[in-house]
Amino acid sequence: MRIGILGAGQLGRMLALAGMPLGQRFVLYDTTGSPSAGIGEVISDPERTRVEAFLDQVDLVTFEFEHLPLDLVEFIEARKPVLPGSRALAVCQHRGEEKALFDRLGIPTPEYRLVDSAEALRDAATELGTPVVAKSVTEGYDGKGQGILRQPEEAEQVWDGIGHTQLIVETMVDFVREVSIIAVRGRDGEVRCYPMAENQHAEGILRYSLAPLPDLDSATQQRANDYIRSLLEALDYVGVLTLELFQTRDGRLLANEMAPRVHNSGHWTQDGAVTSQFENHLRAVAGLPLGDTAARFPSCMINMIGREGDPAALLSRSDVHLHRYDKGERPGRKLGHVNVVAEDHTALLKGVRECVAQLPDAPPVAFSFERD
Amino acid sequence: MRIGILGAGQLGRMLALAGMPLGQRFVLYDTTGSPSAGIGEVISDPERTRVEAFLDQVDLVTFEFEHLPLDLVEFIEARKPVLPGSRALAVCQHRGEEKALFDRLGIPTPEYRLVDSAEALRDAATELGTPVVAKSVTEGYDGKGQGILRQPEEAEQVWDGIGHTQLIVETMVDFVREVSIIAVRGRDGEVRCYPMAENQHAEGILRYSLAPLPDLDSATQQRANDYIRSLLEALDYVGVLTLELFQTRDGRLLANEMAPRVHNSGHWTQDGAVTSQFENHLRAVAGLPLGDTAARFPSCMINMIGREGDPAALLSRSDVHLHRYDKGERPGRKLGHVNVVAEDHTALLKGVRECVAQLPDAPPVAFSFERD
Repeated sequence: MRIGILGAGQLGRMLALAGMPLGQRFVLYDTTGSPSAGIGEVISDPERTRVEAFLDQVDLVTFEFEHLPLDLVEFIEARKPVLPGSRALAVCQHRGEEKALFDRLGIPTPEYRLVDSAEALRDAATELGTPVVAKSVTEGYDGKGQGILRQPEEAEQVWDGIGHTQLIVETMVDFVREVSIIAVRGRDGEVRCYPMAENQHAEGILRYSLAPLPDLDSATQQRANDYIRSLLEALDYVGVLTLELFQTRDGRLLANEMAPRVHNSGHWTQDGAVTSQFENHLRAVAGLPLGDTAARFPSCMINMIGREGDPAALLSRSDVHLHRYDKGERPGRKLGHVNVVAEDHTALLKGVRECVAQLPDAPPVAFSFERD
Repeated sequence: MRIGILGAGQLGRMLALAGMPLGQRFVLYDTTGSPSAGIGEVISDPERTRVEAFLDQVDLVTFEFEHLPLDLVEFIEARKPVLPGSRALAVCQHRGEEKALFDRLGIPTPEYRLVDSAEALRDAATELGTPVVAKSVTEGYDGKGQGILRQPEEAEQVWDGIGHTQLIVETMVDFVREVSIIAVRGRDGEVRCYPMAENQHAEGILRYSLAPLPDLDSATQQRANDYIRSLLEALDYVGVLTLELFQTRDGRLLANEMAPRVHNSGHWTQDGAVTSQFENHLRAVAGLPLGDTAARFPSCMINMIGREGDPAALLSRSDVHLHRYDKGERPGRKLGHVNVVAEDHTALLKGVRECVAQLPDAPPVAFSFERD
């Protein structure tokens, strides 16, 4: 089977690495002009003149990146199967539609308003109670296109700073932690969920994801499973879907946003789960049986951002698996990740801190379950 | 680091798949005219006119295949590091030199003679006592270039059948099982050994490899470790080396042959060991720290020969990892393998038999430790 991937970054790279052992071949189609996957056949086509040539080489199309031109995806969808389809993409590209879907399915979210002027932003901030976070309804990746209002009077400044015609304004949740649930749905409708991960961000960029969580009750995991299953079914989704949530002090889960693709918070599955999120996405889109999503080991993913750690120092540890993306160093750029696995969480956290000490610019590790 | 691989079959493919997450890039150089790796940049050059162009693209060279023209490897070695080097290759290309090395290092082998005529073959068969196995001293892969003499009088027929100028004649060992030991040696001389595997062949082709062995005493593993370590050190070897042995009824290990590369009997390490043989070979040649060679699970590799099993049926099992080579079906051709992993050997053997039942032309599984 020849699979086309829209996007040619590290997620496309890791999809191809996971799919080749299944006998799949990959053509990666890049519209950004800077593909970095370094695997499979890569078509870089910012002018979009070679879409047909790309489609001639593939049996079906998936994507590693949701900020794709919707007209391009619809054009492709008229010619080849796109899994997951343009509907999921359209919903995920618009925070307003995404929230409306959460509402419709009874998935709790932070309270929010849609606004289309600085005045409306100020009013929403007043109504919701500051602080609030304002985000452009479209685009937005890794913390870009967002602003925080500590006072309603900051509305104009934030509005101008973001520079979009419509924003979503949300109350800032007093959460205990940020978590994510990743699930995969097959062509036959079967759904499998991975154990939830706790995610630690810094400057809007994911730094650490740990799973399974040592302090998570099964009812909470089940609730997250129910939420993501309802999303998968509502969208008649095929492939891996990620739902980011806030967990509050009283144990509630509030949906933050979703990503219609394999996700950075699921990279731990490469070494810590029976079947990785990458392989499961490809099994799903190819119509193959889904793989076991159970965790094999307590695992933690450590992102290497901007600068990489010394590979020799990292590889001297038997609890480390290294995943480099073969990219040049640049501030804020995701260059690779380290998966640490261990027999128990105590050993895991010790190993994670020892690795982090070897990485440049890595923030202190502070998972919620370590606090008193 | 840009690594050149001589040979572009499934071993090169799996090396590249294992090395890309380490940030390595691969150029595969094929002299057969039928590369099948389907990954990295492949230079198919049966006329050997593009060696320099190949070398311009790589920092060092390794190989996935030992039946390479020695003059080609020496030519390359004068220009770029070749790891392991031409010396190991030369020894492994000649069964006489290989046996002489075993003898020099005190590694027991079946009794043998070198012969260069049908008459000498008959005399050797008489002296050693039939049955004996005769093999050409050079070439020979997966049972090709071999013959068995049940009577000394069959010498002429076997000699003509093999059609080489020099043969090695060996007593046929009354072995309990065929085993292999795989080890890796780093540039700094560090050696790590994998748990031994039991290998089941059919028609001269490996069908099943299982490791670790449930009935292996640690003294035997240690003896195998000592043998392969002495080979690695004698050859000042860097990378993965494989030594195939016979285990006799009285527990002795007799060296059969060695392969200066990753080996089919080590494919279980992809899913059953902390670090795969492929990653460890690349760590070694790249001068990186070696990875842990411990087994994580009882594991069994099942080769798919000639025809593949139904991927959907195989992937419906949670104990299976599928590794296809993206090759066309052809009798006797290695098309892929399945790794089965389990919590214990009972579950493993049950899973293996259930998988084998789904594979066309797979011989019955019969490991020695299951016999009474």
